[in-house]
Amino acid sequence: MQARRKVYVEGSRPDVRVPFAEVELAGDNPPLRLYDTSGPGSDPEVGLPALRGPWIAERADVAPARGAGTPLVGRDGRRPTQLAYARAGVVTPEMEFVAIREGLAPEFVRDEIAAGRAVLPLNVNHPECEPAIIGKAFLVKVNANIGTSAVTSSVAEEVEKLTWATRWGADTVMDLSTGKRIHETREAIVRNSPVPIGTVPIYQALEKVGGDPVKLSWEVFRDTVIEQAEQGVDYMTVHAGVLLPYVPLAVDRVTGIVSRGGSIMAAWCLAHHEENFLYTNFRELCEILARYDVTFSLGDGLRPGSIADANDEAQFAELRTLGELTRIAWEYDVQVMIEGPGHVPMHKIKENVDLQQEWCHEAPFYTLGPLTTDIAPAYDHITSAIGAAMIGMFGTAMLCYVTPKEHLGLPDRDDVKAGVIAYKIAAHAADLAKGHPGAQAWDDALSKARFEFRWEDQFNLSLDPETARAYHDATLPAEPAKTAHFCSMCGPKFCSMKITQELKEYAARGMRDKSAEFQSAGSRVYLPLA
Amino acid sequence: MQARRKVYVEGSRPDVRVPFAEVELAGDNPPLRLYDTSGPGSDPEVGLPALRGPWIAERADVAPARGAGTPLVGRDGRRPTQLAYARAGVVTPEMEFVAIREGLAPEFVRDEIAAGRAVLPLNVNHPECEPAIIGKAFLVKVNANIGTSAVTSSVAEEVEKLTWATRWGADTVMDLSTGKRIHETREAIVRNSPVPIGTVPIYQALEKVGGDPVKLSWEVFRDTVIEQAEQGVDYMTVHAGVLLPYVPLAVDRVTGIVSRGGSIMAAWCLAHHEENFLYTNFRELCEILARYDVTFSLGDGLRPGSIADANDEAQFAELRTLGELTRIAWEYDVQVMIEGPGHVPMHKIKENVDLQQEWCHEAPFYTLGPLTTDIAPAYDHITSAIGAAMIGMFGTAMLCYVTPKEHLGLPDRDDVKAGVIAYKIAAHAADLAKGHPGAQAWDDALSKARFEFRWEDQFNLSLDPETARAYHDATLPAEPAKTAHFCSMCGPKFCSMKITQELKEYAARGMRDKSAEFQSAGSRVYLPLA
Repeated sequence: MQARRKVYVEGSRPDVRVPFAEVELAGDNPPLRLYDTSGPGSDPEVGLPALRGPWIAERADVAPARGAGTPLVGRDGRRPTQLAYARAGVVTPEMEFVAIREGLAPEFVRDEIAAGRAVLPLNVNHPECEPAIIGKAFLVKVNANIGTSAVTSSVAEEVEKLTWATRWGADTVMDLSTGKRIHETREAIVRNSPVPIGTVPIYQALEKVGGDPVKLSWEVFRDTVIEQAEQGVDYMTVHAGVLLPYVPLAVDRVTGIVSRGGSIMAAWCLAHHEENFLYTNFRELCEILARYDVTFSLGDGLRPGSIADANDEAQFAELRTLGELTRIAWEYDVQVMIEGPGHVPMHKIKENVDLQQEWCHEAPFYTLGPLTTDIAPAYDHITSAIGAAMIGMFGTAMLCYVTPKEHLGLPDRDDVKAGVIAYKIAAHAADLAKGHPGAQAWDDALSKARFEFRWEDQFNLSLDPETARAYHDATLPAEPAKTAHFCSMCGPKFCSMKITQELKEYAARGMRDKSAEFQSAGSRVYLPLA
Repeated sequence: MQARRKVYVEGSRPDVRVPFAEVELAGDNPPLRLYDTSGPGSDPEVGLPALRGPWIAERADVAPARGAGTPLVGRDGRRPTQLAYARAGVVTPEMEFVAIREGLAPEFVRDEIAAGRAVLPLNVNHPECEPAIIGKAFLVKVNANIGTSAVTSSVAEEVEKLTWATRWGADTVMDLSTGKRIHETREAIVRNSPVPIGTVPIYQALEKVGGDPVKLSWEVFRDTVIEQAEQGVDYMTVHAGVLLPYVPLAVDRVTGIVSRGGSIMAAWCLAHHEENFLYTNFRELCEILARYDVTFSLGDGLRPGSIADANDEAQFAELRTLGELTRIAWEYDVQVMIEGPGHVPMHKIKENVDLQQEWCHEAPFYTLGPLTTDIAPAYDHITSAIGAAMIGMFGTAMLCYVTPKEHLGLPDRDDVKAGVIAYKIAAHAADLAKGHPGAQAWDDALSKARFEFRWEDQFNLSLDPETARAYHDATLPAEPAKTAHFCSMCGPKFCSMKITQELKEYAARGMRDKSAEFQSAGSRVYLPLA
């Protein structure tokens, strides 16, 4: 990525240093600064530096759980959450960090968090994390899922996928590991992650009971949550809205329950004929999460898994319950976001956001896609980028990516990149549509470079400079072609941009008077290839 | 594509035989019939059979232009257009063909054509073409652009791209050749094309005057149109709305004029300081097109080329003029569609359709994308699939594809496929959102196959069966994995679909009573990998 370098903008104190990717441009075009998620670069053997270490220490609201060197936890019943500070009117260094990142006032950031409209998922045990804010008033964020499975992949591979995902712009990463070495994989991921890490603790809890959902219990789950909170997980998906009476609503669907967590909890509820233990123990769970500042991602265990099942009774019954749980979590100063679907045809997308915002009191919405059709396995990064862009425009705060391998297999490195890029496109398209301040500057800089045939600037400003350059060079590889005032699509005679540029000069000189001159000069509105 | 075979549905006469791709499904699932654009298969040396030959001959409204064996043309001032027949209340075999293809009544097809809300681009000299209808009441169509350029590519390559594009679902193909051998390339394309072919005649006209727009004239253009109409081009882009007074409106844009045809006509207008000769000679042009049943695709020469320029005065001034020209073309029984942008942020997309429908009297809209952001060269099939799906939902009848090489180079075979697939996704997502009768049957069949772990059926129902199968096999290649009741994403323990299926059986037996039995059976909600 030539001509892109990392720069830091300092805040009110020297250790608030916010990274940007600065793109140098040719001529008198000012450099453009882009939001940058790649982190300071990590040596996997060592992990990242503890950027937030001093900030956490200064607040003096946490202490080691079991003596020196053990994980931090809120001390003396304190709730060291960003929500608690925001409600108390405090602008933390973390809030200032994201304010600089987003180009907004720190007080605005604080107020959005205080109102529950935005979250700052930052576990006190993840000091390596660069703060990122998730809320409808901010840039739309993208999550990438990684993780080992029972069938395949290794710890080293997953850390590499993490680094790879953040390089391409993932704002958060979820570790969905389900196979062996779950704890070890997660430890490696958290220590090397400059972005918030999310998990679904029920997966590990299920491993602990030998894979039988019926053997799950609140105690096993609770201990798993504490284990993960001590490691530094920033947000956790909890399927506390899959209630016993809702399960029959999903039975006659075309695709039933497609959330793993949702199906596990449904199986438990039915086998015991008892209410979901995540729901009945929700207040105790809030107390735990508050101690580490773990953010809730209230899971949509009954989300639709096909176009046919979108926006049905099962889905919306659960959503109402998630709204109820949101209020309870807020009582404990715990930050909350709400997960959403899944598979939704375009004309039913807006209703999802409208109801979620209404029923869940404007807590940030975090959706998987949605896929807008089911007919294109192998291309679900595209079927869902369409839905993701739209749902982002309507107010969704974070989009969980879908890779080309969705429904077919586990994503490899190329799939992770394809998924992240498709979702960065969707998120940015939504930022433009929402009129986020500054979003269009990126488009304008690239469009201007395109019109002025500054090929190197076009590449460097691209979401994926390497691929843009490679595609250009595939047709016109020669170096002069990168300064040519045309490209391979139209060739020199037909280049509309070239013609317009000459019209522009012509217009500048006064159109009427110069008509004759233009013609006598041979009416050259193009330059032949030298 | 195993388990897919071409079947034909016969209409009211034995030579109306409409192709479908029939997908055989396992068990007692009925086969699914999909719209099929691939044609009967062509030997490039011979060309395709003249499906429409008898229909054209029976109407006795055309005659060879210059004696036996020369191209057909309306005889004795007759206008052999589908619009003329529809207005006269006649259901042609072509109309019946598309009615069967779309699952709608022939009279409905006729009435939509008669009202100008749909077009059936079918030159009397392209008897090889399988009729396809373009209008908002029908399935959203996809156009693929191919064509040689001054810089690269050959005739054989372009014919191969044509066949490749229709194999993946392109409903029409535009030949945008601009280099040498334009006539020969087009001849090969038309003779081998089972789908309507569009062109932009100004490109060839410009070649004829040595590439200097100022040397263009009505006479050169007219002769080029006749030459192409005699070859069988079904629709032609004509930039008759780029009027002299509109040109200055585009001068201060970020990206000026980005349409090749638009910039050529703008250059001509300014150099001569005269009104666009396509506009001043429009009625004569209508008379010519009527004689061959060539459909107008009124070009948007002033379409925006960047997010910054979307929905501006230049664009909408031209659109109003296209509405005026639509009325004139209809006086001559010439079918019309209207081209649209381009580059438009999501929140400005709907306005494009609304104004086009209002000002152009509901003539079908045919848009290029639009791209919803400019930051992702190399991924503009995705940036624009988002816009295409949305603009399709709002009522656009045909979507012109964009390939990953857009703005960077000429598309190769892989790019053509990537572009067509992305646009078939967008078109189908729009069909679902519009509630086209039958559209959702495809999604439901695939979703049901997914839920029931019918892997082979999933692959065969996919838009791209080969890639879906390859992605599956990349993680779990063994043959038993294709019948396994789980996949590589979650592995056997976490398979939500498997769990739901068991819940379903469980519910069917009565949930309350069976709780004990479920538990005593070991609470097996998954099957371990054999």
